[in-house]
Amino acid sequence: MMRLYHWTLDPASRFARLVLGEKGIEAELVDTPTWTSDRDTQGAIAKLAPGAQIPALVDNGADGRVVAIGPLAIVGHLEDACPTPRLAPHTRQDRAEANRLWEWIDARLTQVDQTLLADRVGQWVRRSQPDSQAMRTGAHALRGHMTFLNALAETRPYLAGRTMTIADLACAARMSAYDYFGDVDWDSAPDLKAWYGKIKSRPSFRALLNDRIEGARPAPNYGDLDF
Amino acid sequence: MMRLYHWTLDPASRFARLVLGEKGIEAELVDTPTWTSDRDTQGAIAKLAPGAQIPALVDNGADGRVVAIGPLAIVGHLEDACPTPRLAPHTRQDRAEANRLWEWIDARLTQVDQTLLADRVGQWVRRSQPDSQAMRTGAHALRGHMTFLNALAETRPYLAGRTMTIADLACAARMSAYDYFGDVDWDSAPDLKAWYGKIKSRPSFRALLNDRIEGARPAPNYGDLDF
Repeated sequence: MMRLYHWTLDPASRFARLVLGEKGIEAELVDTPTWTSDRDTQGAIAKLAPGAQIPALVDNGADGRVVAIGPLAIVGHLEDACPTPRLAPHTRQDRAEANRLWEWIDARLTQVDQTLLADRVGQWVRRSQPDSQAMRTGAHALRGHMTFLNALAETRPYLAGRTMTIADLACAARMSAYDYFGDVDWDSAPDLKAWYGKIKSRPSFRALLNDRIEGARPAPNYGDLDF
Repeated sequence: MMRLYHWTLDPASRFARLVLGEKGIEAELVDTPTWTSDRDTQGAIAKLAPGAQIPALVDNGADGRVVAIGPLAIVGHLEDACPTPRLAPHTRQDRAEANRLWEWIDARLTQVDQTLLADRVGQWVRRSQPDSQAMRTGAHALRGHMTFLNALAETRPYLAGRTMTIADLACAARMSAYDYFGDVDWDSAPDLKAWYGKIKSRPSFRALLNDRIEGARPAPNYGDLDF
């Protein structure tokens, strides 16, 4: 059985879980928040590779042990080891477009993770006061990126084209983490909202929508398929 | 013939050129600085895809036209279209490690690009005064990341293991851009310096070492293989 070291609201971990879900792989999930001081957990991650971080997938498969750390390595390994269903589109042009948008999303939304989401998580972990500057910076960046993504969703059924790809999963994983705290203004981006409704309805998404962190309820429409 | 829209000192563009070079592909290079106001150049990029940016590769191959934008799409397309030599390592574990480090390098060194390198380029393009805060932030981040990379280079012939991979090209491309302005303190990281010497000596690197931008000579050891 595969094992995934993850944390519930970490966008990259959510993305890894969606990829596993789309491929129908049940993995053992090991809760590994980055701020934990638990030595066993920290030690387990540190032993995987120098500088290892979540999400980290360990596959003790028939062909030997593979440790895949980070979304790129995890997707690469799962596409090799469990090629059906393949998440990369069929044609070269569609694959290139999916990879372009996956990279775009990761590069752009990182700023939202490091400001808005990090501050929400910090408030939850340390009961710290909100840093209004970080929240504003993140919310502003998110609005800008949603404008671009909404324009794609306006003309294409999925972000990269006609079929669902890795770009959709990467984007939806991130949005779902912001959405847990009610930080996504879906009404400002109606086509993106319709797109998110489609991704949210996939069976692979169900586990994410059932996630709860102790003492912080998700925003009212977080789990609704009709939001 | 393939065409690459790029800019000389853009790290992602340099990386794309290294990948082309390793595969022995001669592409037509179209100089496309991001700040250009030239309408033809801007129009050519904008027509490729919504939100398109450099590096962008256009391959009018026998199997139809493929537009691959950004390092991930470019590498994916070239590994498909020109599989020999393959840049992905042979075993699954080695591929996962190469992908992990490639992603790590991209995520971490982006901050150096956005501060130290962006400021150097800004000084060159706009003859602006140095922003000492940006320079310090970038230099500090670079030192920290070099410590990690040096530790890898201490125990492994290449960053991800025994063979040269995409992680080495991604890292060397970035370092070479900082090195143009003399911003890499190689003596603080002797094992990384020895690793860079190996990558720098590859035929694919030669064109990068011959690059010059008008009115800004590279640092004295930029082009030296024995630096």
